Formats: sequence, C-alpha cells, structure tokens
Amino acid sequence: MEIKQLLQLVKEGKMSIHEAEKLLKKLPYEDLDFAKLDHHRTLRTGFGEVVFCQSKTPEQNAEIFAHFYAAGKNVLGTRANQTQYEAVKQSVPGAQFDPISRCIIATEQHLTPKGSVAVCTGGTSDMPVAEEAAKTAEFFGARVSRFYDVGVAGIHRLFANMEQINQANCIIAVAGMEGALPGVIAGLTDRPVIAVPTSVGYGANFEGLSALLTMLNSCAEGIGVVNIDNGFGAGYLAAQINRLVCDGKSKEER
Amino acid sequence: MEIKQLLQLVKEGKMSIHEAEKLLKKLPYEDLDFAKLDHHRTLRTGFGEVVFCQSKTPEQNAEIFAHFYAAGKNVLGTRANQTQYEAVKQSVPGAQFDPISRCIIATEQHLTPKGSVAVCTGGTSDMPVAEEAAKTAEFFGARVSRFYDVGVAGIHRLFANMEQINQANCIIAVAGMEGALPGVIAGLTDRPVIAVPTSVGYGANFEGLSALLTMLNSCAEGIGVVNIDNGFGAGYLAAQINRLVCDGKSKEER
Amino acid sequence: MEIKQLLQLVKEGKMSIHEAEKLLKKLPYEDLDFAKLDHHRTLRTGFGEVVFCQSKTPEQNAEIFAHFYAAGKNVLGTRANQTQYEAVKQSVPGAQFDPISRCIIATEQHLTPKGSVAVCTGGTSDMPVAEEAAKTAEFFGARVSRFYDVGVAGIHRLFANMEQINQANCIIAVAGMEGALPGVIAGLTDRPVIAVPTSVGYGANFEGLSALLTMLNSCAEGIGVVNIDNGFGAGYLAAQINRLVCDGKSKEER
Amino acid sequence: MEIKQLLQLVKEGKMSIHEAEKLLKKLPYEDLDFAKLDHHRTLRTGFGEVVFCQSKTPEQNAEIFAHFYAAGKNVLGTRANQTQYEAVKQSVPGAQFDPISRCIIATEQHLTPKGSVAVCTGGTSDMPVAEEAAKTAEFFGARVSRFYDVGVAGIHRLFANMEQINQANCIIAVAGMEGALPGVIAGLTDRPVIAVPTSVGYGANFEGLSALLTMLNSCAEGIGVVNIDNGFGAGYLAAQINRLVCDGKSKEER
Amino acid sequence: MEIKQLLQLVKEGKMSIHEAEKLLKKLPYEDLDFAKLDHHRTLRTGFGEVVFCQSKTPEQNAEIFAHFYAAGKNVLGTRANQTQYEAVKQSVPGAQFDPISRCIIATEQHLTPKGSVAVCTGGTSDMPVAEEAAKTAEFFGARVSRFYDVGVAGIHRLFANMEQINQANCIIAVAGMEGALPGVIAGLTDRPVIAVPTSVGYGANFEGLSALLTMLNSCAEGIGVVNIDNGFGAGYLAAQINRLVCDGKSKEER
Amino acid sequence: MEIKQLLQLVKEGKMSIHEAEKLLKKLPYEDLDFAKLDHHRTLRTGFGEVVFCQSKTPEQNAEIFAHFYAAGKNVLGTRANQTQYEAVKQSVPGAQFDPISRCIIATEQHLTPKGSVAVCTGGTSDMPVAEEAAKTAEFFGARVSRFYDVGVAGIHRLFANMEQINQANCIIAVAGMEGALPGVIAGLTDRPVIAVPTSVGYGANFEGLSALLTMLNSCAEGIGVVNIDNGFGAGYLAAQINRLVCDGKSKEER
Amino acid sequence: MEIKQLLQLVKEGKMSIHEAEKLLKKLPYEDLDFAKLDHHRTLRTGFGEVVFCQSKTPEQNAEIFAHFYAAGKNVLGTRANQTQYEAVKQSVPGAQFDPISRCIIATEQHLTPKGSVAVCTGGTSDMPVAEEAAKTAEFFGARVSRFYDVGVAGIHRLFANMEQINQANCIIAVAGMEGALPGVIAGLTDRPVIAVPTSVGYGANFEGLSALLTMLNSCAEGIGVVNIDNGFGAGYLAAQINRLVCDGKSKEER
Amino acid sequence: MEIKQLLQLVKEGKMSIHEAEKLLKKLPYEDLDFAKLDHHRTLRTGFGEVVFCQSKTPEQNAEIFAHFYAAGKNVLGTRANQTQYEAVKQSVPGAQFDPISRCIIATEQHLTPKGSVAVCTGGTSDMPVAEEAAKTAEFFGARVSRFYDVGVAGIHRLFANMEQINQANCIIAVAGMEGALPGVIAGLTDRPVIAVPTSVGYGANFEGLSALLTMLNSCAEGIGVVNIDNGFGAGYLAAQINRLVCDGKSKEER
Repeated sequence: MEIKQLLQLVKEGKMSIHEAEKLLKKLPYEDLDFAKLDHHRTLRTGFGEVVFCQSKTPEQNAEIFAHFYAAGKNVLGTRANQTQYEAVKQSVPGAQFDPISRCIIATEQHLTPKGSVAVCTGGTSDMPVAEEAAKTAEFFGARVSRFYDVGVAGIHRLFANMEQINQANCIIAVAGMEGALPGVIAGLTDRPVIAVPTSVGYGANFEGLSALLTMLNSCAEGIGVVNIDNGFGAGYLAAQINRLVCDGKSKEER
Repeated sequence: MEIKQLLQLVKEGKMSIHEAEKLLKKLPYEDLDFAKLDHHRTLRTGFGEVVFCQSKTPEQNAEIFAHFYAAGKNVLGTRANQTQYEAVKQSVPGAQFDPISRCIIATEQHLTPKGSVAVCTGGTSDMPVAEEAAKTAEFFGARVSRFYDVGVAGIHRLFANMEQINQANCIIAVAGMEGALPGVIAGLTDRPVIAVPTSVGYGANFEGLSALLTMLNSCAEGIGVVNIDNGFGAGYLAAQINRLVCDGKSKEER
Repeated sequence: MEIKQLLQLVKEGKMSIHEAEKLLKKLPYEDLDFAKLDHHRTLRTGFGEVVFCQSKTPEQNAEIFAHFYAAGKNVLGTRANQTQYEAVKQSVPGAQFDPISRCIIATEQHLTPKGSVAVCTGGTSDMPVAEEAAKTAEFFGARVSRFYDVGVAGIHRLFANMEQINQANCIIAVAGMEGALPGVIAGLTDRPVIAVPTSVGYGANFEGLSALLTMLNSCAEGIGVVNIDNGFGAGYLAAQINRLVCDGKSKEER
Repeated sequence: MEIKQLLQLVKEGKMSIHEAEKLLKKLPYEDLDFAKLDHHRTLRTGFGEVVFCQSKTPEQNAEIFAHFYAAGKNVLGTRANQTQYEAVKQSVPGAQFDPISRCIIATEQHLTPKGSVAVCTGGTSDMPVAEEAAKTAEFFGARVSRFYDVGVAGIHRLFANMEQINQANCIIAVAGMEGALPGVIAGLTDRPVIAVPTSVGYGANFEGLSALLTMLNSCAEGIGVVNIDNGFGAGYLAAQINRLVCDGKSKEER
Repeated sequence: MEIKQLLQLVKEGKMSIHEAEKLLKKLPYEDLDFAKLDHHRTLRTGFGEVVFCQSKTPEQNAEIFAHFYAAGKNVLGTRANQTQYEAVKQSVPGAQFDPISRCIIATEQHLTPKGSVAVCTGGTSDMPVAEEAAKTAEFFGARVSRFYDVGVAGIHRLFANMEQINQANCIIAVAGMEGALPGVIAGLTDRPVIAVPTSVGYGANFEGLSALLTMLNSCAEGIGVVNIDNGFGAGYLAAQINRLVCDGKSKEER
Repeated sequence: MEIKQLLQLVKEGKMSIHEAEKLLKKLPYEDLDFAKLDHHRTLRTGFGEVVFCQSKTPEQNAEIFAHFYAAGKNVLGTRANQTQYEAVKQSVPGAQFDPISRCIIATEQHLTPKGSVAVCTGGTSDMPVAEEAAKTAEFFGARVSRFYDVGVAGIHRLFANMEQINQANCIIAVAGMEGALPGVIAGLTDRPVIAVPTSVGYGANFEGLSALLTMLNSCAEGIGVVNIDNGFGAGYLAAQINRLVCDGKSKEER
Repeated sequence: MEIKQLLQLVKEGKMSIHEAEKLLKKLPYEDLDFAKLDHHRTLRTGFGEVVFCQSKTPEQNAEIFAHFYAAGKNVLGTRANQTQYEAVKQSVPGAQFDPISRCIIATEQHLTPKGSVAVCTGGTSDMPVAEEAAKTAEFFGARVSRFYDVGVAGIHRLFANMEQINQANCIIAVAGMEGALPGVIAGLTDRPVIAVPTSVGYGANFEGLSALLTMLNSCAEGIGVVNIDNGFGAGYLAAQINRLVCDGKSKEER
Repeated sequence: MEIKQLLQLVKEGKMSIHEAEKLLKKLPYEDLDFAKLDHHRTLRTGFGEVVFCQSKTPEQNAEIFAHFYAAGKNVLGTRANQTQYEAVKQSVPGAQFDPISRCIIATEQHLTPKGSVAVCTGGTSDMPVAEEAAKTAEFFGARVSRFYDVGVAGIHRLFANMEQINQANCIIAVAGMEGALPGVIAGLTDRPVIAVPTSVGYGANFEGLSALLTMLNSCAEGIGVVNIDNGFGAGYLAAQINRLVCDGKSKEER
C-alpha cells in the first residue's frame, strides 16, 4: 500500500527513485539501542506483538513493552519472571503477569475470542507449557478449552473428554516423559493436532528428546510438532489455523 | 449410529447386554491374515484409505488394495515400488503409479479439489518428498500449487513467488541440508507452515537431523514440523487444515 | 551334584585336591574349535539351548545344533536364514524353520505348554519381532496368545481385545515408530508388561531409538524394556515369569 | 460391575441410554484443581496410590495425600524432599519419610509381606535408587532382601551371596558407571532380573546412558530394563511379578 | 634469524653443536609456574597476545597480563569476569573491561584499523558472542562494522543492510536457534562468511548444536564455521583474512 | 543495472509499475522442468556454474551442463560418476572427468590461475576429498599446491613442508580419523586455514564426527570448518579468499 | 594359601566340606553399614586402598579411611573436597590434602618411587586432571615427571621436551578441547601412551566428548584411552605398567 | 645419528648450513605417487611396517608391500581382503593371508616371540577382532595365548582360565554387545588390561558404542580402551608393553 504511494510519487516525478528506495528501507524500522522493532508485523499477522523476555534485562523488556504499547498495540511477553514483570509494570501499569505460564500480557485492544482451540496435557507437570500455549492462543484471538491431566497412563480419562475435544478447530496436545498423548488423540479425531513435547521427566528422557521423537514418529496422521517446551509456538500456530477456519473459505475459493 | 441401534435392541429386550457388547467389539474389524482393517476410518476422517507399502510384500499390498477398493473406497499407497504396483494393478486395474513420489493411487470416487495448499521445496533433490506431500494433499481433496527450487541459497527466487504462495490456506515447506526454507517462509506469511525436513545432504547432515533441528528451532512463528522425509504426514495435515478452512466456521461458532 | 562326588573322593583320599580342582574346571566344557559349549545351562534353566545364528557360518551352526541334539536337548536357533537352515537340516533332519521369525527349532523332548503369555504388536510390520518372541516363549514352555495390529493409531482395536490380554501371566508388547503401545497396555492391566521396541520406521525414528526411549519413559507402571528388535529376550523373560507363576508359591514361602 | 448395574437400569427403562453413558464417564473422576484422581486404580491393581512428588508444590502434595488417605488408602510418595514431607505430615500425621530413598509413606492398611524380591547394587552410591526400589516393592506387598555393594569390580563378593539371591521370585539389579551387574547376575540365575541403570559416574557415563546401554545389550537372558534412576518402576514391576508368583497358577490354568 | 646466528657460531667453532641445540630449545620459553609463555607468537602472527581467562584464577590472569605487558605487548583477555578484571587492573592499570563481550583489553601500541570486517547477528541475544568477535577483530587490526538483529525471522531487515555488508573484506554471521543467517548472507555476497553458532535457544537446540549443524550443512557456498559461541575464533580468522587482503597481492605473485 | 533501466522506463511512463515488477521477477529465471537456473550467479561471483550431480539423473545433469555451456559459461560438476559423465559428454564433448575427485569440468573460458592455495592431507585415504577441494579452487581461478600425506602420526613430514605451505594465501587442511592436522598447521602459520573433516576411519569415528569435533574445538586460532567430506565448499571458500587477496586492497580502503 | 589350609583340614576330616565353603565365603569381608571392604585387594595388587570420595558423606569417608588406616594400609582418596578432608583428618591426623588434584593421601608405609612415568598436558586448564594422575601414579609407587602446557597449539614446546619424555616407561597425555596431544606424542615415541580426555572446553566440545573421540581415533599407534577426566584411572594403569617394567622379565620368561 | 654426521660436516665447513638443512628434510622420505614412506619408523619402534589396506587399491597395496620388503623389512597388512592379497602375493610371494583376522603378513626376519600377551574374547563373534590383535602382537614380537569365548554371560568359564591369564604381561580383552568382560578381568588381575569394544550386536548397541561406553566407565582399575574393532591398536600397545617388561628395568633406573 505505502509502496504504491511512494512509487506513485516516483512516477509523478515528486520523488527520485534513489530517495524512494531509501525511504522504503528505513521506514519500517525504529532504532532502539538493542533491537530493531518491526511495525509491519501487526499489519501482516493481524495480531499483536510478542517479546521473548528470557534473555533480556528488565530494563530492555520494559522499554520494548512501553514502545509497543505507546504504538497502541497488544503485547505478549513469554518466559518472563517476576522481576521483569515489575519493571514492565512501571511503564505499562495495566500489564498482567501469570506466574504459571510465565507470560506478561498488556492488552490495549480487547478482542472477542473466536472459534475454539483445545489444549490437552498428559500430566499435571505439563501445565506451565500448556498454559503458555493457551495464553498465547487467547492473545491471538482464539477461544480456548483446557483438558489437563488426560494422559495415556490412565487413558480412560481421555475418552471421557474426547467428544468435547473434537469440537475444537485445532487441538494442542502437550506431553512429557513418553509423549504418547498427541498420537492417541490424533487417532481419535479429524482435527489438526499440534504436538508439544515437554522436558518433564528424567533419565533417558534426555530433557524432552524422548517425547519429541515419539511425536515425530507417531503413526497416527494429522500431527505437526513444535520444539520442546515451546508452548508459545503451539499457541500461535493453533490461533492461526483457528482464525483461518473462522474467517471461512479460502481466498482462492472466493 | 450403529451403537444406537444395538442399544435400542438392548432396551427393547431383543438383545442381551452381553451379546450387544460382543457384537460391538467384533463388528468393525475384518480379519485378513496379516492386518485388521478398519472401515470406520472413512467415516471418521471423510477421506479414503492409506496403505504404507514399504514393509509389505506385493501380495499383501495387492490384497489390501483389492479389499478396500471392493468396499468402494479410494486408496493411496505410499512408499511403493514398481513391483508392488504391478501386483496391485492386477487386482485394481485402474490404479496409477507415480515413480517420483512412489505413490500408488486407486481412485473410485472423484473429488473436486477445494481450497489451496502450496508445496515449496528448497532444491530439486527434495522433489520426491514434496511430490508425496502434494499427491497426498490432492488425494484428501485439496487443490495444490507447487513452488519447487525456491530455496534459501538463492533467496530472490522465493520472493518472486511469495505473493502467490500467500494465497494458500496452508503452506508445506520441504527442505534438506540446512533446512532453512520453512523459517524464511513463515517470516513472510500469516498462513500455517508445515515443515518437512528431508534426508537430502551428507556428512553432518546426519540423514536429515540437521534440517529437522533447524525447523524445530525456527525463530519465525507458525510452523509445525513432521518427521524426516514424511511427505505423506505433511500432505495429510495440510489437507485437514485446508478442508477445515473451506468448510468454514467452526462447529461451536455455528 | 558332581562337585559333591568329586569332593567326596577328595575326602576319601581317592583323589588329590589338585586333581579335583583341575577336573572341576575342565569337566563342564567341551571344545569345539570355535565355541565352548556349556552343558550346565539346561540344568540351571530347565529349558533347552539357544544358538544366535546370525554371525556364524552354516557349518558352525550345523555343528552346534548336531552337538546339542546328540546330547538329547531341544535347540532354538535365532536370526537364522534359509542357507543356515539347509545346513542344520542335514545333521538334524527334524529341525523346522520359520522364515518370518527367522527361527530354527529342533525339538527332541515335547513340552506341554503351560500358563499364558500374550504377544501384542502395534502394526503388521512388527510381526517378525513378535513372532521371534512368541516362538521363543513357546520353546521355553509357555502357551502363547497373539494379538497383532492393535496399535495406538487405532486404539479401539486394543480395547476390544483387552479383556483377553489381561488373562495372561505376562504381556509382551512389540511396537516400532512411536512405540506407545506398551505404555497404553500397562495403563490397562495389572500384569507385567515386557516392552520390545522395533526398528520399524524411518527418519527421526533413528532405527528404533525413538520407540526405545518412549518405552523407557513410559509413565505407566509395570514395564520392563529389552533391546531394539530383541524378540528373543522378551520371549525368554516372559517364559521365565510365566513358569514361576505356574510353579506356584515362591521357595521361601514353602 | 457398576457398568452392569447401570445397564440393568437402562434395560429396565429406569435410565435413558444417554444418561447412563454420561454417568459412566463422570463417575470415576473427582476434580481437584490440578489433577484428576482415579479411584479405580486400587481396584485394578490391588495396591495403594502413588504420587510423583518432584514437580509438585508442598501444598499440592499435601492435598493429594490427604485426599487419598481420607479415602482409606495407602499412599507412597516418590522423589520427595523434607519440605514436601513437612506439608504432608500436617494433613497425614502418621506419614513417614526416608531421606535416602526420598520416599514418603502413609500406610493405612498394613500388609503382610509375601514372597521375596532381592535388591542388589553395584556400589554404595547406587543405594538411593536401590532403596526407592526396595521401599516401593515393600509398599506393594513384597518381602525384600537387600544385597548392596556386590558389584562387578570385586565380583567374588557377588558369588558369596548368589545362593541367597537365587531364593527370590524376582531380582532387582541396580548399577551405575559400567552397569555390568544385571548381566552377571542373569548369567547365574533362572529368576527374572529387573535392571536399573543409575546416573552414578562421570564423563563418558553421560548421566547413566552408559549403564543403560550395557543393560539393554546384555548377552545374558532374562533381563528387563527400566529408565535411568527409576527405582520406583523396578520396585513396582518386581512386586507385580512376586505377587503373581505368590498367588500361584495363572487364571487360564485354573 | 636467531637460528642463523647460532649456527654461524657453531660454524665458527665458537659454540658446540650440543650447546647450540640446547639454547635453541630453551630460548623462547620463560617459566611461570603454571604456563609456558611464547614470545614467538607476536613475531609470527604480527598481532598481540591472547589469554583465555575462563579457567584461570584472578591471580594467574593478572600475572600473565603483567608479564606480557611488561614485554611491550598488547593483550586481549577473553571470557573474563569482573573479579578477574579487578585483579588484572592492579598490575596493568590501563586495562579496559567490556562486560557484554567479557573481554579485557590492554593495549600498549595503538594500531590504525584497516580494511573492513562486518559482524551481523540474527537476534539481540546473540550480541555477547558478536561483540567478542568484533572486539577480537579490532584487537587484531581490523575496522569493524556491526549489523545486529538482522535475522531470518524478519528477513527484510537484512536486505536493507546488504549493500553495506557487501563492502566488507570478510563477513562474520552470528546466529543461535535455527542458525540460518550465515546461509542467507552467503547467498547474497561474494565475500567469505565466517559462521558462528550460538547457544541461544532451548529444547531441541541442544545448546547450539542445531545452529552448528545448520551452518555446516548450508547449501550456499563460501562459509567457514567455528565452534559454538566462539566469537574469538571468528574475530581472529576474519582479522587474518582482512589483513591479507589489505596487504595486497600474495607472496608468490610478487 | 537492469533494474535502473526498468525504473527509468517507469519514470518516463513507458512502462507501468505493475509491468516492471513482473518483468523484474521473471527475468532472471528460465524454466527447465526440474530446476530454476540463475544467470545472475556468474555476475555476482565472477566464477562459473556448479552442479551437484549426486542426486540427479544422467539426463538431468546433461541438460543442465548443455544449458550453461550454451550460455558461454564454465561448468563444474561435483560428486559425479562415470555414467553421468558419459551423458554430459554427449552434449558437451569437451567436458573432462576426474574419477578420484569425481569432478566433471567443462571449461569454456580459460582462466590464468592466480595467487596460491595450499591443499594438505593427513593420509592417502583423504585424497578424494582433497582433490575435490583442489579442483574446485582451480576452477574458481586459484593456483593450487598439493601437500598430501603430511598427517600428525608422522609429524616431521609436515615440518619439512611447512615453509612452502606458508607461502599460500589460504591453506586447506583435509583429515579423517582424529582430524588433528588443521590444528597443528594453524599453530605454525599466520594464514587462514580451512579445515575439512573426512569420513575416513571406523568405529568411534562415527562417519567423520570425530574429525569434525576435533576441528571445531581446536585451540589453535585461525580455522574455519566446513561439512564432513565437503571438499567443494573448502575449495570455493579458499578461492574466494585467494581472489580477494590477489585483487588487493578492500573496496572501502580505495 | 588359606584355601589350601582349609582343604587340608577337610582332607584330614577336621572340617566338613560344608563348613569350609562357608568360611571361605565369609572370611574376606567385614561389614561396615554401607560398604563391604576387601582386605584382599592389597595382597592382590601390591598397592594401597583407594576411596572414591565424591558421592560419600564426610562421615562415611572418615570411617573408611580410619578403618583402612587401622589395618596398616596406605589410603588414597580421590575427588575429595575440603569438608571431607577435615572429617578424615580427625580420624587420620597425618592425612594430606591437595586442593588442585582433589586427593587426600594417608601414607602409612613410605615407598621408594621406582621407574618413571611422564605426565604431559595440553594446557594449563588440564592441570587438575593431570595432577590426579600424577598423585595416583606416585601413590602406587612410580617416580613421576611432569611436562605441563606442551599442547599442540604451540607444538614446538613439545619438541623441546620430547627427549626427556621418551625416558619414561609410560607416558600419560592429558588434553581437553581438540585432544590432539596423545596422538602427536605417540607419533614421536615407542613408549605406551595413556590418553586422558578432559572436559575442558565449550560448545561442540560436549563436555569432553570431542577430546575422547579424537583420542580413540588417533592414527598413531600405542595409545590406550581412559574415561573423560579420569586422572586416577590413567595414573593407576601407568603405575601398573611401570611396576611391571621395573620388576623385569615376565613370569613365563623366568 | 645421521644428523650428527651432517652437523660434523657443517662444522668442518664441508657442507653449507643451507645444504645440510635441505638434506635433512629430504633424506627420510621417498616419493611414491600416493604416499610418503618413512624408513625411520623401524629404527624408532624396533618393529616392522604396517599397511592399513582397507582404503587402498590392490595395486597400491602391492607396491607398498614390495617397496618395504625390498628394504628388508617385515610388513603387516591389516583389514585386507583376498583380492588385495592376490596382488601383494605377486610381488611378495612369501606373503601369508589369514581370512579371519584379515591380515597379510610378509615376514623377512623371523623374531623369537618373547614374554606373554593374553587375548580373551567374550564370544565367538568377537574372534576376527581378537585375531587381528593376536596376529599384530605376534608380528611385533610377543608370545600370545588365546582365551576365546570366556564372556560374562557364562562367567564361570572365565574363572576356570583366570590363573593362566594372570601369567601374561598384558591382557587384551575383546567384547561386543554389553562389553563387560574387560571390567570383570581387571577386577581379577594386577596386569594392565587393554579393552577392545567390538561392533558385534544390534539395536541399542549402536555399532559398538554400548561396549565402548561400558569399557570407559568400568569401575575396575587398570584398563586402557582402544577404538571399536581396533584389534590392531590393542595388539600394538600390548606388544609395546610386553617388550618393555621383557627388556627389563627402565632406562632411568639403569
């Protein structure tokens, strides 16, 4: 859109090609000292901004939150801790912190949740990752249903909930240790399943490797896998699929 | 449905509970010597049947194809070879074989392709896996667009096609060696990306491990990963998402 | 027993201590050129002899079979091929060969099968390993029931058979790819489950590593795991447990 | 059993099929906030309840213990620490804590130990895992004999105890570093051996991987392996086998 | 040179062969208690001295810095911490410490920076490694341009800077997680690219393994890879190449 | 350059923006059926074209060679075999094949070799990889000196050649098994060293992993590593560095 | 010896066979609570006792030291810390502690060192492991020469010392990072080389794996490798070889 | 020696320093086309020459054998096949081939075997590696005793032979699968044990990795490990130790 405007100016001789190219390159970036922020993302994705807090100082995080918030955007911070939250809160007083999912959420524009994403876990210990997934999916506009502790060791628990789980547009299955849950769910549904291995376990679990390999090798169809403990990635992908479904027929169809 | 009929008979006293349970368990299975076939799948998934040919004898494959075909179903055989195809062809004369994707396809009921799935590859050598994905997505009802050889080493090739790729409901990105393609595409789209690592490469590629890890660790959002060389899994998942999008609003919404 | 006789002779002065020790060391071994055979094993285990055929020449295998057979023992050869069988057959005409399990069996004394061992597989491709387990358990005196193709991808197939499986003294669960079957079965039974990962699969299966890790990390209790593709080891262990159960109360109890 | 009652009501028209199904699904679960507890387990397994304490807060653990205890059950908590024990003790005053095995035990109904399980270790450092195994086997009703520090480096120590070890219905062999103990024991017994690799060691031990691989590759027959440091799993499996042996002939036999 | 002098003395009979050999061996070493320092290096490399501080005590580091500094050399300390710096500062007051790159720099002779090395990073978290590379290249005489946060997830950021990056004699590309940056840059330049994987990431990143494998398997030409987090190695190699380019035609050419 | 022409036409109103963009995207690609060829590469790199023959059919390779050759370019085919060469030779009669390095070379324009690249190997078995590196460096314009079989096991062989090796602008060090050669060379030179691990070895070599890790962990400075057996990559990078050195001062300097 | 006495008594009818066997089994063990001590070792090995302190409490270590010391033996404690030493010192006042090698040494009988073992290290950081090796070899009677910091990065340092190193009966070569030192030394000597990989390094060093693989794959002959950081094992093996050499001709020869 | 002569000439002015250096460098090498042969080795090691045949053509092997043989040396070829032997035989008619160990031996000067090396194997399948070790030790002057098939699965076989094994100056213990044999032997001897893991096994053996890790982690003292299947390396090291022992007191002692 903006590109067209610029090129129009070029065509009309109101701007040199050289100048236009330069503006094009500079425009979408603003320089903080430590990161180049991209205002394009919101336009492109239709969602808010995400900050991976873990490897940043409280000050860096606070500055990024403030910057985005000032630009009128919703901001989701993942892998945050209490100290980082305190710093963020000073610049964005309305920001909320959930210590289980370790998410900081600063919501400027309230979205009405749409469609449905189901988040299932194998055990209680997988909850932090599952909550990161759920919070992320909600942040990006999805209505989320939680089905925790429905793992394979007591598989009848899963069956009791399967009808409801099957209502969702997309199912997130979170599991550590052996990681069999996504495969079992995929064998019982025709909905896309996003599998999240967690690092819960010990010994030959090798910090989640066991669950990861299980999910990649599942003989049930319809599973896409994300990185170990990557609740955020699963929530984002699920929200994307959910939004596409809610928005109806594909562009080409129309 | 059938369960209801049975229970109705129980209620009406026309069948003992014991007998009903027994029938329930036996009904959905038919015994070939080597595999229990499941007529339920078509009902549940709305698609046809799939046979993983690789570890089966030509005779076993032919028998399974014939059985399903007789039941009026479409059948897709993956990881097949010419010999297996010859055997299948004798019992199902209309079966087709594609030597690149190694798929045997026996289509009884012709589906009108719907929506759109884009299949992209990093290089020419990734084509067999990409074609397995494309053929699978088509088998399960999706219209497929192919964008081959648009890999990261010559990244301008990808940009020239990105607008078209962005039309799809779901993007499959197939890449071997370093496996960077899915991450780059996900950074340029708001559509779900299914990443397929291939075993193309040598040395520290470790038969696809390198590409697999790259895809799992991508810093771009919106990627689900399948097993190395698992074109079938990617095609199935993409078709599932595509179908959901084409069928429109989620059940809960309605 | 024989040791007592010798020591008796020592005590009675009919044999020097030095001589007795020497005999003791030499007695239980017979020298073929390539292997030291141990007649003690049958006494100790109450079963027959086992020959791991794979890395031996047809002549070596034939010689070992003939030797044991001449000593009046049952012999089980594992990981054998047709050529090895032909050679064995010449010296032991009654020997049988099963090409699926790759077992050669030469049975001198017929045992009445006792108790019950259940052998379950996830898929058709796991059958060779499962049959090796079943044939081994039978060789060592167990009655065996087979439940093939009851894997997790179509989990309702398992439930239909679970009541029968629960009758066994010991359950062998064989699965490749994701390897979730043993965990699911263990969640539904109070019988010991012996888990056998198979190398069936591709890509991130890493030749059975995936299934192996799944089984070791299972969150269901009551599972012991054997090496990848080790049907023999599972069959032996199951037969051992089955025999103990059939023989009734433990020694200390009596 | 209860299912029969419900179905009886259905048959008698006192309950609709729909209602019956619903009750069936809801009945066995009670909702705490964080975990779905399963009263079925005791019925199914004939033992008490187990709580994996490690990843739970002191409050969560205390609540679960109190809940089970109130239901009249024995409870075993594994991988617990002193703080967790203090919390549990407040709601279940009779609970005991063993700092070596890290087990909390709350025993409502006292069982007379039956049969015999032998627990052997390679070295002094393997004791915590061995004690977890021993405590677990005792919790589930087995009489346990301990043979510690009988490892392969001083193999004559093992021989001095082998006769006694051979009295057991099931032998648990716990070893770190090279992990050779289970293989040596299995070569000297006809009893099932449960091998437990421990993470004791350094360097190329790779946190227990070395011992795990040794045990999986043992050339002695009759070994089932559990996860690294999984004393609980070994104790449970051993108790299961021991109980079956004590309970005598298999069901089918009778 | 010195060797010639000595041999001259031998020839002239002013020194025995034996004595000459001894001097030759002893001359270039001076004995501190804990390390043998090599005055040859500066002559050979034309640069200063480097101290890997990490595994040394503050006292050891201070002593080594003082020793080199007294010999009139520039000294670069890598992987240092504040405590080590305090100790160094007492003996070499002019020493500087950069907490991000963790470098201590004591510069006796000021070099005019020559040529150009570009240092690029995928994300903000890669900055410590990138700064170690940049500081090292500067220490060894190169002019350095920094292009941080131009990673693949927002690939248009890279394109906006590519023309400038292409001015350098050598490009250092630093990236964690998926590690795709070096491959993308190499596809857009004809300059040598030194790839530095970082340990930034989690889960299947396996502490930098993922990025390392990606870089080794890149299908773009012109990439040399260094160890994970080895900013120093990259900076050194880049400075070496840069210096060669600045010094012009090769020796053989002249 | 061409972009400017097009934009000039846009500015002058002789071409619509839309049309110009389209041409821009289409122009540099020509469609063969299986690969998109890029004429840009020669301009960008100043060298010829490279074809990775391994995973292509003889017909595909012949077609690509013919296409490039017709466009007046030099072509280098790597990892080729005799059959592929026969096919290429029919369309490009002047093409040469070297069975050791497995390179097909079709040289249209003869380059005068410049500068100097030294290729060293640890043992005789590393020669195929070394020759691929040497042939590649020569193809891209470098004069190459070979120093084969100068490995660490007989380290005095290396010293005898070190003075000559030090004349090169860039040193390629090829080694399998333990892979120590590059580290030793880097300790004796101030030239950049490109390390190529080979898969020569057995056992704990793990197909080149051992040599790769050695090279990445070298404590000598000035080493960049390429993939296992990647002679091509090393030759390309060395030629790039050599050319930069020969072309003299950096752009910024001038 | 004692066995003969016992058997003599048996022969003379002064002791029953049964009783004799029992005594034989019980005699060599004494029961502390946590470990079975073996007085045989000193007789068998001709050296003192070794205690692996790391995983034991200060009290356990003190008790073991006191027990052995009371029995008139020399005791070496490895991987000890200051706290453990304080406890040991209370029961064995003459015990010495070396914080670098982390060894506690309590020497009752002073041995005159014999023969010669050379201990070489690649770098300063390998010193703790090297000192553990040196202290161990000295404890077991060897005269030890130390050659530290003679690693491959500055290989001329090694050459200056090689003549002296070659005087030893056995050479211990300790190296981290790339681990090339043992291979280089073995290429320059005809003495057995014991290679000790250390965990010194970072990134793709994978905690010593890199150095371990290098040493196992060395193409120089005459190298035996021990576990990562296992200075004790190397010192013991070297002392064993040294002692055999000093004791002269083999038994069979005499 | 020769160096002294040269330097003498330099001193006497009969040779320029420059010339002397050149001769020094050139003298010990002779150029075949593909390998630089080193006449020094025999002098240095006191043994013959070794050729690793595996990766060489029959012609290359024949040429090397002929060259060494003409120089009056004994030659040992390892990892050879029948075809390579035929070629060698034509130039060295007296050469012998052993198909089990895959060794070609051409012995010019007959050595009287000295001392004693014991070679033990776990099973029959380890024989090829054991024979390579035995043949190598014999080639380098050791008298060898073989103790095959004395593995841990039937550990009493080992005890029967232990007294004899303890006569050796050095013990080689060869084992695949679990690889426990060396640890058990080391617990029963005071002689150095060289452990050789073999690739015999399957599944989680990972081509010998399991046995390798077992041996590196052995808790018995006095073990040095060589590469998987490296019988040659073990035989060489054993012969070196054996020779040192036979030659008596160390140099320093004298």
